[in-house]
Amino acid sequence: MTFEIAIGSNIRKSPYFAATLRAGVRSFSVYNHMYIPAHFGDPDAEYRRLMGGVAMWDVAAQRQVELVGPDAARLAQILTPRNLAGTKVGQGRYVPICDHDGFLINDPVLLKLAENRFWLSVADSDLHLWALAIARERGFDVRVLEPDVSPLAVQGPRAEAVIAALFGDWVRDLRYFWFRETALDGIPLVLARSGWSKQGGFELYLTDSSRGEELWNRVAAAGAPFDIGPGAPNDVERVESGLVSYGSDMRRQVTPADPFEMGLGGLVDFAGGHDFVGRDALTRLAVRGPARRRVGLWVDGAPAAPGNPVRIDLDGAEAGVMSEMVFSQRLARTIGIGLIRADLRDDTSGLTAALPDGPVPVYPAPLPFR
Amino acid sequence: MTFEIAIGSNIRKSPYFAATLRAGVRSFSVYNHMYIPAHFGDPDAEYRRLMGGVAMWDVAAQRQVELVGPDAARLAQILTPRNLAGTKVGQGRYVPICDHDGFLINDPVLLKLAENRFWLSVADSDLHLWALAIARERGFDVRVLEPDVSPLAVQGPRAEAVIAALFGDWVRDLRYFWFRETALDGIPLVLARSGWSKQGGFELYLTDSSRGEELWNRVAAAGAPFDIGPGAPNDVERVESGLVSYGSDMRRQVTPADPFEMGLGGLVDFAGGHDFVGRDALTRLAVRGPARRRVGLWVDGAPAAPGNPVRIDLDGAEAGVMSEMVFSQRLARTIGIGLIRADLRDDTSGLTAALPDGPVPVYPAPLPFR
Repeated sequence: MTFEIAIGSNIRKSPYFAATLRAGVRSFSVYNHMYIPAHFGDPDAEYRRLMGGVAMWDVAAQRQVELVGPDAARLAQILTPRNLAGTKVGQGRYVPICDHDGFLINDPVLLKLAENRFWLSVADSDLHLWALAIARERGFDVRVLEPDVSPLAVQGPRAEAVIAALFGDWVRDLRYFWFRETALDGIPLVLARSGWSKQGGFELYLTDSSRGEELWNRVAAAGAPFDIGPGAPNDVERVESGLVSYGSDMRRQVTPADPFEMGLGGLVDFAGGHDFVGRDALTRLAVRGPARRRVGLWVDGAPAAPGNPVRIDLDGAEAGVMSEMVFSQRLARTIGIGLIRADLRDDTSGLTAALPDGPVPVYPAPLPFR
Repeated sequence: MTFEIAIGSNIRKSPYFAATLRAGVRSFSVYNHMYIPAHFGDPDAEYRRLMGGVAMWDVAAQRQVELVGPDAARLAQILTPRNLAGTKVGQGRYVPICDHDGFLINDPVLLKLAENRFWLSVADSDLHLWALAIARERGFDVRVLEPDVSPLAVQGPRAEAVIAALFGDWVRDLRYFWFRETALDGIPLVLARSGWSKQGGFELYLTDSSRGEELWNRVAAAGAPFDIGPGAPNDVERVESGLVSYGSDMRRQVTPADPFEMGLGGLVDFAGGHDFVGRDALTRLAVRGPARRRVGLWVDGAPAAPGNPVRIDLDGAEAGVMSEMVFSQRLARTIGIGLIRADLRDDTSGLTAALPDGPVPVYPAPLPFR
């Protein structure tokens, strides 16, 4: 099904918007109240480029929530069950954020820019409002704001070569999730080794939106010898790799899930003794054990993707949810990702996904798919 | 510019989604993480139908945040500067919601379903997260949840005739913003006299999403003698009428504005003595007086709509923002809506809007346009 997207003033355009038009963007989605390219006309070619070459993605919709001021570190720590004690300036951490009942409300990367300044690089929910409420209700001395920051991702096995050509060989020593504040011919940005794929790469957090065109063009030019091309966060790769997609795999209002169910229990740190929102609820959940577990799913045949999460059944009763389904050219099979009852082992037979055209057999698989 | 919209599992479909496809929807937008029809191929005809006949709109994306439990009324009151003391069960109120600094974060309609049960029918931001944080940080005994509620709007001068044909003549006595829990051949819903237009009408808050098809078909059939047709919240009518659009006219993270600037100062009630989030900040803002004021804008010529808010300048300096611009067939002129410096009177000359193709003269006008 293809429909037009309405371009209106209630949804923001990225600083790379015009550049993506010139690059031939064909389809948009909306993320954090901003247009984000979905594909440029040939999703299969974009997948191959990500897996074997290098792609550039407008991910400005991955907005930042900045915490700055005397209590910024205190607020950052209270927001996440992960223990931030050892985090250094220049280091990023993947930080699940939970509400008081232990349900995930976002899963950003935290960038520690200074002892009293942090960015939360957020998935698709208004974490800004949450962080504001927590900060002000607790009387913290901290500002919570959305800075002028627009990430551009460079992803794929040849990403490092492109980034080294742009910034120099020091980028090769940048460790995963670490970053450095730098500039490219005066274009200010934060360069991080990160990105929403498992193919390696970098994110350029542009800090002056008036220079989006310049940055896009610089990256495209430096990438040309490596056959760089435009792309977008790739659903096939993310399902194959088992990346979490907040909004698809879970969303607080609609499909609540806790970190233990999502396989993020290892990041919940009770031992450190630090306080965080949801600590009591997560303690209870940890004792009880998760009701569901995250799995890959082999899907029989090549049915049409439903475009939304679907129920998984066993013997006529609900046994889980398949949150996304794609056809993997690489694996030559249809695969999905979702949550099933924790007591169901990988060799469970009889599971079916309630696709629009009828139930289809599915088989649990470890993540990532191999 | 027309582009495809990506249909993915991270954005929900409304219970009326399939019905709108059959009705010929051509363009979607995204609102509260849900697809919402933008138009059905002929925006001008849809405007005329809204102004002179009756239209039906899938506005399921107008999600509800339900507050239920012993402290529900206390939470509802703490969330808004408006005094809810006199609100009756069965009554709706337009309730601006502000953060601790007095900036608007949403502007829902509150429906009082029972003394301890409320819905906030929300604009496009995650008010759910905000209400959860406030409730739990204050230790209130209340549940905050998203119920299974999907509004269908019937709008236009002939809406009452359609709704009376469906429900009976009692609906003619329903006052503006009041509602009644009822059913249509067993389809459970809340019927309210409300809607995001100034042309009159009703909203049917369906409370069983499995019956979206049935409800859509019942309304379409009952409306046929009145020439009902599908439509969507109409940007031209909203600018003519001066309706507030959260996300377009203001958004906390991007374009913060307070209720006084937005012309909503009359709803901020300090005299009642009730406590609410933002009271101190709003008190200071009320004393100081607003820095900007909300205006209509006559725009010279018929320039292309920019698709995003644009700056307004006076003598080379920033003097405000035009948040949306449309061509009004009825007024035979281009019109806009926005905020300008509070000291600038309606007869100010020399204002220009910074449109993509260059500055265009604009002239303040009272709202609604006449």
